[in-house]
Amino acid sequence: MSDEMSYHVDGDLVPADEATVSVDDRGFRYGDAAFETLRAYGGTVFGWQAHLERLEQTCTILSLDHGVSADELRTRIDETLAANDLADAYVRLSISRGVQPGKLTPQPTVDPTVVVYVTPLPRGGLEGEPVWDGPAAVEVVETRRIPDESIPAAAKTHNYLNGILARAELDPHADEALMCDFDGRLAEGATSNLWFVRDGTIHTPTTDGPVLPGITRAIVLELAREAGIPVHEGRYEPNDLMEADEAFLTNRTWEVRPIETLDDEPIGGGLVTERLARLYSEQVEESCYQ
Amino acid sequence: MSDEMSYHVDGDLVPADEATVSVDDRGFRYGDAAFETLRAYGGTVFGWQAHLERLEQTCTILSLDHGVSADELRTRIDETLAANDLADAYVRLSISRGVQPGKLTPQPTVDPTVVVYVTPLPRGGLEGEPVWDGPAAVEVVETRRIPDESIPAAAKTHNYLNGILARAELDPHADEALMCDFDGRLAEGATSNLWFVRDGTIHTPTTDGPVLPGITRAIVLELAREAGIPVHEGRYEPNDLMEADEAFLTNRTWEVRPIETLDDEPIGGGLVTERLARLYSEQVEESCYQ
Repeated sequence: MSDEMSYHVDGDLVPADEATVSVDDRGFRYGDAAFETLRAYGGTVFGWQAHLERLEQTCTILSLDHGVSADELRTRIDETLAANDLADAYVRLSISRGVQPGKLTPQPTVDPTVVVYVTPLPRGGLEGEPVWDGPAAVEVVETRRIPDESIPAAAKTHNYLNGILARAELDPHADEALMCDFDGRLAEGATSNLWFVRDGTIHTPTTDGPVLPGITRAIVLELAREAGIPVHEGRYEPNDLMEADEAFLTNRTWEVRPIETLDDEPIGGGLVTERLARLYSEQVEESCYQ
Repeated sequence: MSDEMSYHVDGDLVPADEATVSVDDRGFRYGDAAFETLRAYGGTVFGWQAHLERLEQTCTILSLDHGVSADELRTRIDETLAANDLADAYVRLSISRGVQPGKLTPQPTVDPTVVVYVTPLPRGGLEGEPVWDGPAAVEVVETRRIPDESIPAAAKTHNYLNGILARAELDPHADEALMCDFDGRLAEGATSNLWFVRDGTIHTPTTDGPVLPGITRAIVLELAREAGIPVHEGRYEPNDLMEADEAFLTNRTWEVRPIETLDDEPIGGGLVTERLARLYSEQVEESCYQ
């Protein structure tokens, strides 16, 4: 890999330090953009179809008819990985509504800005090292997850201040901020879905609440069901988590990451967490290396 | 004025088509930026001190310690107006948290990206033409204003999807979307504060709710009080607005703009609205032309 990375911006591969968008781009002005965080393992994008479907769901919610085909998006990702000689990578695909005349009201005709950003990310899991230094220290924060009636959580967008304000509340040693909804139920972390295990059953907040339908979340749900581990998607309060036997977080980057402490009280991973982490790694293995 | 505009980006005046930010800039990635919409009348920025105070309030909420002095910000605005030979202009001043290492969690050391965007905007009011073609058609939409516990409305940021989703609900002929809070009380328009007049008293939603403390709103409140017109800041339902004698919207661009229809039912401006619009224009006159 050369020292200088290349990104894909608006149809072209460009050096990272020339990868820019106009200050008039609605992605910059308003955070008016959809995005996906992906992983490439051994040169293969993991779960591409699921990412594509969620991206389209986001764009539907935003009324963002970008007009770029799935094949074209995939080509741009592959070109960016190849240009940087990357097999194991973090990939961010963003589609903004581009530049439109002055008004806030979105116009139906869109010249989107498509950005593919990549950075090396070694494989975790069975054969590699996890990207996190250790299990997570999490805290329940005061910031409340934005309700679906304001911005649907199913849309993965560049409006991330809710999570940033949540993270800004953390003590310096903590990694992730857990937000509750307006009924006081646990929703999700700023960049992760939440899970806990009690009496052998796996629990995770339902996406009926303001919870991003994580791709990793969907895979872990399926893996647990296939393994015959009881799973319940429900509504939980912080006390339910405090009384858990095990707890963990999931997202594309962290995969399955144990929660060491909640508000400085120990929880930890355990046998179920470890089993799911192993099953997840095997899934990566099967999908990307065979 | 030349055909090509210049904007001020990161300390330099640059041609508009070269005015860009990095795709890594947190303003693009997360909408992690504060901004102000200002007007220049006759070469003078109107209400600069009030804008400066609100900008600092936004930055405090975002923990964004940008380190750029008030004098420096003002200098960049004045330089941008001068470079474009503009006396009457719309001005947008944005300060993003700039580029930081990969994490969502904001780092305390900030190299901010400061952007000054300008565009010609002829004076409305006493001597000019209003920027709007006619009174506003407004609709109460389903999208709810983000609660303060998720993102405080007092912060004016680049996270604007809440307003964009509200605007996207509008019928094509409508101008502005009115959002309610989660108690069903009217909060504000996507880019404007709401006012109505009933039995000689002016009403506007209180900023105790999720309502941006508009600079124009503050000026109109003060003008009404000075003129001895009774003013009440309260919590109102759409029905209260429907029964109003007059109604109008305020923001920096529209100044005082009558509401012609609410959900296609006529309301209209009237004597109080006209008086406030005149008083506002006189204030502009006094502040910027003497």
